[in-house]
Amino acid sequence: MSQPADQREISVAVSTVILALLPGACGTRRVHLPLVRRTRQPFQDRWALPGGWVCPDESLSDAGRRTLAETTGLRPSYLEQLYTFGRPDRSPTGRVLTVVYSALVRSHEAAAATEGENVRWCAADDATGLAFDHDEIVRYALWRLRTKVEYASIALHFLDETFSMAQLREVHEAVLQRPLDPANFRRHVEATGTIVPTGERLTGTRHRPPRLYRALVPAGSPGPFAVAGPPS
Amino acid sequence: MSQPADQREISVAVSTVILALLPGACGTRRVHLPLVRRTRQPFQDRWALPGGWVCPDESLSDAGRRTLAETTGLRPSYLEQLYTFGRPDRSPTGRVLTVVYSALVRSHEAAAATEGENVRWCAADDATGLAFDHDEIVRYALWRLRTKVEYASIALHFLDETFSMAQLREVHEAVLQRPLDPANFRRHVEATGTIVPTGERLTGTRHRPPRLYRALVPAGSPGPFAVAGPPS
Repeated sequence: MSQPADQREISVAVSTVILALLPGACGTRRVHLPLVRRTRQPFQDRWALPGGWVCPDESLSDAGRRTLAETTGLRPSYLEQLYTFGRPDRSPTGRVLTVVYSALVRSHEAAAATEGENVRWCAADDATGLAFDHDEIVRYALWRLRTKVEYASIALHFLDETFSMAQLREVHEAVLQRPLDPANFRRHVEATGTIVPTGERLTGTRHRPPRLYRALVPAGSPGPFAVAGPPS
Repeated sequence: MSQPADQREISVAVSTVILALLPGACGTRRVHLPLVRRTRQPFQDRWALPGGWVCPDESLSDAGRRTLAETTGLRPSYLEQLYTFGRPDRSPTGRVLTVVYSALVRSHEAAAATEGENVRWCAADDATGLAFDHDEIVRYALWRLRTKVEYASIALHFLDETFSMAQLREVHEAVLQRPLDPANFRRHVEATGTIVPTGERLTGTRHRPPRLYRALVPAGSPGPFAVAGPPS
């Protein structure tokens, strides 16, 4: 199984798409992702997804975790493999394949990112003009997220352990970028059976404090992107 | 973006999991997949998934299509990226990452495979003892298939353009490996709205010829494995 010499010309990288709901310019929450400014050619000074090369003894997901932490300080509890991008011309300096990992993180986890001159959170729909084919990767990740958000358990990855129905609806509205009818939304979510009332109510509101709910699925269970894969 | 020398030690291969419903030993149809006997080390003489190295100028999916055709003669109308397997120790001769592509094919397409001493169709649940981590890849592909078959449109990839409700149920039974109640199955499928009656009936049966149905989704539309990805 020795490979032909030219086969070695493909290099292997990982990239990460980390999604969080953060307040946008006008105050409403939107899906954001961390970007890293490139300090080297190619695409020097352009924004890119966090990532880097895979070390020889490192699993692909470990490489995703390591390069994400090194560039942004983020350490999500799990990463899921999203897709492998390998178009022959996706890098101008030779053939590079990138295995993309993704995670949804809560706002307080997003705050762990070391924002600075070379790291920033960007509204995902505004993330264009990125290095390599990263525009395409971001669009694909958003499309997957929006396709999957119909399953209520996806949105739970953006929320704290307990939440009101309005908070859950707000996540769906932010992901889908359209208002949802509160009564229809409640009926739909209750029909899915993925959340249960905790018996508590939200404090700090003036009258009729809303009920709190929690997920039936345990935290850290299979994540947002379609199905979880085997570790690799 | 020049990579460290040791990064080049990862080689890139593709593998394909092609699933078809074929008659098993006892006559009932089961999910089968084509395997190829290895003629070289490592794992010489062991059965493996069809696949091979990616050429420098070739897209990953083209490499999947080419190596599948070269080894088995199969040319499915589309391949979907299933998952990338990259555990550092998955090959004994150096680090190899494999991007796995998958397709469901109809029985008559499966017949195009050049069966012989080094190619055979094997019942997927019996495919163990394969080279590399291919046992794990097959189990993962079957798990994905079984998770997804609840959407009626998945099973349609195994059927001809028109089919009876009993033929559709037989596909589900073969995939799930358990009998399904005909009346419940019919109600469930009709509720999904993914198939419509053609107005015709199956010919060649003695009395009460069953209605024929067709898929609402066009043939060749997004395939069985979760969501289709961008070409890569």
